[in-house]
Amino acid sequence: MRYFDCAVIGTGPAGQKAAIQASKLGKKVCIIEKENVLGGATINTGTIPSKALREAVLHLTGLGKSGLFGEFSRVKRNITIADLIYVSQQVIHHELALIRNHFDRNGVELIWGAARFHDDNILYVDHGETFEMISAEVIVIATGTRPARPSTVPFDDRSIVTSDGLLKLDHLPKTMIVVGGGVVGTEYACMLAALGVKVTLVEGRREVLGFLDSEIAEAFQYHMRRMGITLRLGEKVAKIEKISPAHREIPGAAKTLTAATTPDVASTPGAAGGAVATLTEPKAPPAGLHAGEGASDGNGNSPLVQATLESGKLLRAQTLLFSVGRQGTTEALELDKAGLKADDRERLKVNEHYQTEMPHIYAVGDVIGFPALASTAMEQGRLAVCHAFGVPTSSIPELFPYGIYAIPEMSMVGRTEAQLTDAGIPYEAGVAQYSELARGQLLGDETGMLKLLIHQTTGKILGIHAIGTGATELIHIGQAVMAFGGTVDYFINNVFNFPTLAEAYKVAALNGLNKLRHM
Amino acid sequence: MRYFDCAVIGTGPAGQKAAIQASKLGKKVCIIEKENVLGGATINTGTIPSKALREAVLHLTGLGKSGLFGEFSRVKRNITIADLIYVSQQVIHHELALIRNHFDRNGVELIWGAARFHDDNILYVDHGETFEMISAEVIVIATGTRPARPSTVPFDDRSIVTSDGLLKLDHLPKTMIVVGGGVVGTEYACMLAALGVKVTLVEGRREVLGFLDSEIAEAFQYHMRRMGITLRLGEKVAKIEKISPAHREIPGAAKTLTAATTPDVASTPGAAGGAVATLTEPKAPPAGLHAGEGASDGNGNSPLVQATLESGKLLRAQTLLFSVGRQGTTEALELDKAGLKADDRERLKVNEHYQTEMPHIYAVGDVIGFPALASTAMEQGRLAVCHAFGVPTSSIPELFPYGIYAIPEMSMVGRTEAQLTDAGIPYEAGVAQYSELARGQLLGDETGMLKLLIHQTTGKILGIHAIGTGATELIHIGQAVMAFGGTVDYFINNVFNFPTLAEAYKVAALNGLNKLRHM
Repeated sequence: MRYFDCAVIGTGPAGQKAAIQASKLGKKVCIIEKENVLGGATINTGTIPSKALREAVLHLTGLGKSGLFGEFSRVKRNITIADLIYVSQQVIHHELALIRNHFDRNGVELIWGAARFHDDNILYVDHGETFEMISAEVIVIATGTRPARPSTVPFDDRSIVTSDGLLKLDHLPKTMIVVGGGVVGTEYACMLAALGVKVTLVEGRREVLGFLDSEIAEAFQYHMRRMGITLRLGEKVAKIEKISPAHREIPGAAKTLTAATTPDVASTPGAAGGAVATLTEPKAPPAGLHAGEGASDGNGNSPLVQATLESGKLLRAQTLLFSVGRQGTTEALELDKAGLKADDRERLKVNEHYQTEMPHIYAVGDVIGFPALASTAMEQGRLAVCHAFGVPTSSIPELFPYGIYAIPEMSMVGRTEAQLTDAGIPYEAGVAQYSELARGQLLGDETGMLKLLIHQTTGKILGIHAIGTGATELIHIGQAVMAFGGTVDYFINNVFNFPTLAEAYKVAALNGLNKLRHM
Repeated sequence: MRYFDCAVIGTGPAGQKAAIQASKLGKKVCIIEKENVLGGATINTGTIPSKALREAVLHLTGLGKSGLFGEFSRVKRNITIADLIYVSQQVIHHELALIRNHFDRNGVELIWGAARFHDDNILYVDHGETFEMISAEVIVIATGTRPARPSTVPFDDRSIVTSDGLLKLDHLPKTMIVVGGGVVGTEYACMLAALGVKVTLVEGRREVLGFLDSEIAEAFQYHMRRMGITLRLGEKVAKIEKISPAHREIPGAAKTLTAATTPDVASTPGAAGGAVATLTEPKAPPAGLHAGEGASDGNGNSPLVQATLESGKLLRAQTLLFSVGRQGTTEALELDKAGLKADDRERLKVNEHYQTEMPHIYAVGDVIGFPALASTAMEQGRLAVCHAFGVPTSSIPELFPYGIYAIPEMSMVGRTEAQLTDAGIPYEAGVAQYSELARGQLLGDETGMLKLLIHQTTGKILGIHAIGTGATELIHIGQAVMAFGGTVDYFINNVFNFPTLAEAYKVAALNGLNKLRHM
């Protein structure tokens, strides 16, 4: 049996940072990975692949630059899944090498195998043909999550998929239903729409991304619709099923055939099956849409997915992405041997120090639930290990940023207007449109905006909300000002490079200050 | 005669902000413009057009993304001047509308005409066919600069041009000599090289952009050379002349024919004139290079420019960009009537409040010299007017950022390593390479870096230096931390969105901290 000061289970961002922090504190540390690649969902199926795809989609379609570059903006007319995978794989390979290198440089012992608890200090690690036992004083669970796959949904990894399956499709569908308006659902909905896929997004709440400031969420919904995405908000899916071409019938008169998007979508080849006599003839796909081989057999005989909403509406599309919730991956850990118990979605509850009910066993990252972002997962990993070994840290969780890599991208830090109103904190909003900035013009981003929420009496910055090019980067300027308790005056007095998007802070500050003066 | 509290001469960034500030203070203000467009050099011939061109060049060539996107990265194979002008004009028109709108909204009286002093409180404004006199308590001179045009250089606005003339060329030359390694010279050299023009840059000092941190300047020079730019550093131009095809002769053996760049450049069509018998045959231009009609008559008979360096070297190219210095534009103001005197480059000297020798006459922007950036010009305009009307301001000039929109872009705030060493301030440098960041990978930027200069004992941030994608935006994160006296701990503890370039701050901070720990 090998002995470690610290054993980390899972090599995603939370586990990586936990292990490296332990090593930097001079501890003997191992990190255990059950898959045959490092990096967890972030690298392999989640954050990085989706961001690589997004970058590729933005570049290859020229989206977001159409204002400025007009007809020059599109690099490739026909974009295939192979193009996208190529870009994604390059980044993934590089990231894997970086992680491996990080472990090596820091003396983190990497152990391949599936871990499970023997007791609260000892782990079995199953290497496949062999196994070993590992003893550790501190154990960090960073096993992450996987997409939820309810048994009522007939997943087939071809036409009904989770986000993991989406990345394995061998062609771009023409039409798609996305169930779930969270981060994953909206990010993919935007990317697919940018590629010319007709997307219908179904979300049970009245808006997507409920944690966002509502002005930003509304702007985002506006942009989604402008991209051709049909939003079905406040609607729940009652049933998801596959229908074979032979069984396609026109729904009863009491129901509405919405297919996968705007009215003319019923006329796309996939929907215009032989049995649907009253539908119009197939039209040519929109410019730039490339339905890869295998998308349809040309006779309208490809299988269709049908989603029945609780309201009675029927939606049909070639593919359905189910992205409602993710669930923990703790079942194989045999938590009960360590005296722990997961919730009904296999997730763990922790205190403010990321300790489970066993004080020397920590849990960090997606496995503990919201916000389930790579950025916060890393910080949790670092904080948990520092706490475990008695190293003081400072962290301001209310200044954790949120980044959503949809099209357009969004980011926020601090509180929303609704939260401030609920808390009875008087504020004024200062807004800058990217179109007011020379840099916004240069980038051809006609839709971006940045909003500062300013305390009405102290001038302190209470929240920052951004949508548009570079939002996830820009937010960190204001985050620093908030961290130091700065006021709107900082932005008024600061000199920004010209031309930059960072100037949005000054424009927004001036806008807010003008409103405050008129009070 | 009309009476104003404040009269501003010139509608560039400095003048704009001065006028709008005066208006916001409730003053009656006019702004006078002698050209028939607003915005000064920033909008019409300098900052904005060059940045619009840069954006177009980057997008159309896919430069900086080649790492990731490979063969997909180039949008257009043949890029013409017309493409570039199209993009540039769109931005300019929009900016003009914005400025006009700003003046209208703020009640700034816009007066078209050429101003000159009658006395130190009264201006003549010549409208062309009519003129008027204007009296103002405070006068702000913001007349900017124009490129220097020494009489010894035979400018013809076709083959020997300043940066103003470059934007009017009707075709892309195949070869170009750039004289001057300042901001203007390096920015254009990079853009032209990106478009496939063979560029030779001549700079009298041992390095370009002497105010930069030398690690950044060296990295930049490395990138320039990789783009195919030939750097002739520590070399001065003795003579610039046009040579007609008939008079081209092979220089004497004691001299070196370097033409416009690397050895094979002598074989480009322009250099391979009929009289130069020993030169090799013309080769096809490199992929993507589009020499518009008129570049050559096909018989090698287009005129050539020859620059003789003091070292004896001869350089030849189709076009020469002369970008050594800019000079003030105050001659027409008849400064002597107001009791003022310009220096030999028509520039004005001011005190720390931007006052000239006449305390109620201020001068701001490029006309007062270094740093001659749009960003600082705006701040000067605002500060001058606030001072004139007794409004307290706070400004931290040592935190003014510098942004250089070359390829790659660069930015800095605070002090350089050399400055800190000279001042005897002990520091450690923490460096992050973009290639270490997931976002750097996603962007395909393999060359970017960010450097933090950290005080060895207090941990305070003393300077930030960045080169690569988004450098001019990113610098503002660290600038805020510096403004609030923050230390390297801020970056260590902060949560950054993942994946962002902003993470470079954390990586650099960890790098710096590790070095400090090993001391």
